[in-house]
Amino acid sequence: MADNTTTFATLKDAVRRFAAERAWEPFHSPKNLAMGLATEAAELMEHFLWVDSEASRQVTADPAKLAAVADEMADVACYLLTLSNVLGVDLSDAIVAKIAKNAVKYPVEKYRGRYSVTDD
Amino acid sequence: MADNTTTFATLKDAVRRFAAERAWEPFHSPKNLAMGLATEAAELMEHFLWVDSEASRQVTADPAKLAAVADEMADVACYLLTLSNVLGVDLSDAIVAKIAKNAVKYPVEKYRGRYSVTDD
Amino acid sequence: MADNTTTFATLKDAVRRFAAERAWEPFHSPKNLAMGLATEAAELMEHFLWVDSEASRQVTADPAKLAAVADEMADVACYLLTLSNVLGVDLSDAIVAKIAKNAVKYPVEKYRGRYSVTDD
Amino acid sequence: MADNTTTFATLKDAVRRFAAERAWEPFHSPKNLAMGLATEAAELMEHFLWVDSEASRQVTADPAKLAAVADEMADVACYLLTLSNVLGVDLSDAIVAKIAKNAVKYPVEKYRGRYSVTDD
Repeated sequence: MADNTTTFATLKDAVRRFAAERAWEPFHSPKNLAMGLATEAAELMEHFLWVDSEASRQVTADPAKLAAVADEMADVACYLLTLSNVLGVDLSDAIVAKIAKNAVKYPVEKYRGRYSVTDD
Repeated sequence: MADNTTTFATLKDAVRRFAAERAWEPFHSPKNLAMGLATEAAELMEHFLWVDSEASRQVTADPAKLAAVADEMADVACYLLTLSNVLGVDLSDAIVAKIAKNAVKYPVEKYRGRYSVTDD
Repeated sequence: MADNTTTFATLKDAVRRFAAERAWEPFHSPKNLAMGLATEAAELMEHFLWVDSEASRQVTADPAKLAAVADEMADVACYLLTLSNVLGVDLSDAIVAKIAKNAVKYPVEKYRGRYSVTDD
Repeated sequence: MADNTTTFATLKDAVRRFAAERAWEPFHSPKNLAMGLATEAAELMEHFLWVDSEASRQVTADPAKLAAVADEMADVACYLLTLSNVLGVDLSDAIVAKIAKNAVKYPVEKYRGRYSVTDD
């Protein structure tokens, strides 16, 4: 898996070059990039609109469909990487910080097997 | 920057462990994860709702606001990484493939400085 | 039901007055309103994030939850009505036209009981 | 304008019949409808992705573009009306209640000409 060796910086550089070659930086305001990301997230979601939750797992058994889904995931990722370039955000730092924050918000003993807790 | 050294696999492992510790895998169908991702993308976008495109770049001058934005970006990333775990998608491969595809779709000479081309 | 007697124009007028009293028209560009609408749509969707499709129907049995959902639906509607004001779009005409278009796209005999048709 | 005379109930009936003729009720869970609505909201938003806020107002000068936008608005509306059918929500009641709630949340004297208030 390329994921084993590819750093975030490598792909941030790739999307930065792509935009620079086309002189697209003026379009890439945080507002526009966030809109673009939300639009691609909706296209990703649309693949799973009419299937039930469990059935949506079967997408892995359909190579053409899985490739289409991976393609939408990449669109989301490209916007996210471009936005982190524009804002100077260290994305992996932000992710690690968020996981730590969520570990406090969702303690294991309380949330094991459930997503919301109505009473203790 | 941690982005210089952090691989996608490292953070995919982190979100996998987080979910496993809470036994959240049954909730993490592709359908639900895509919905969650779209929801977080909308929260990210909401930060830029009432500002103009150019003005949205000023978020970098406001550390508290920038931290809030980075936090939402991390939420989006966590869903994307979790989805790539569930689907067995190599995210960096998908991103590289997408950039190559977009390089063909948006040739430099034709798209330099503009996002859409109505005639040649 | 107020829906039996309330016209679209009545509520378009109500949201127009609301914006005018606050001098919010400068904020209400189509771009911003479309972003606002998408943001509220995501908040509506979030209520159903972790429940299965069938289980989501049970929201009708929980008055507090149903009221919260109706509140989000109203947010979506207010943006849609405001956008139709700003663009001068006759929303009911657009809806009737869309239903007619979909009736051609999804012929009854072919789509009865299914949402997609892979072969004839 | 048809909006002057068309009630919400009239179009709720139209979308109900459309779904009934195709036996689509089993697909129309609140979860799926909220996802569909969010997907259409993103398609509407996409029309305004790369234009600036003020420039987005010019869509009214381009009949073909305006028709495409109205078509997406109708898609959003159809999902919203179908969801109100499924949940038994009186949409116009919910809208009126929301406007009243927002009138309290955003007092005219405080919010005139601005969307957020950082201090009094």
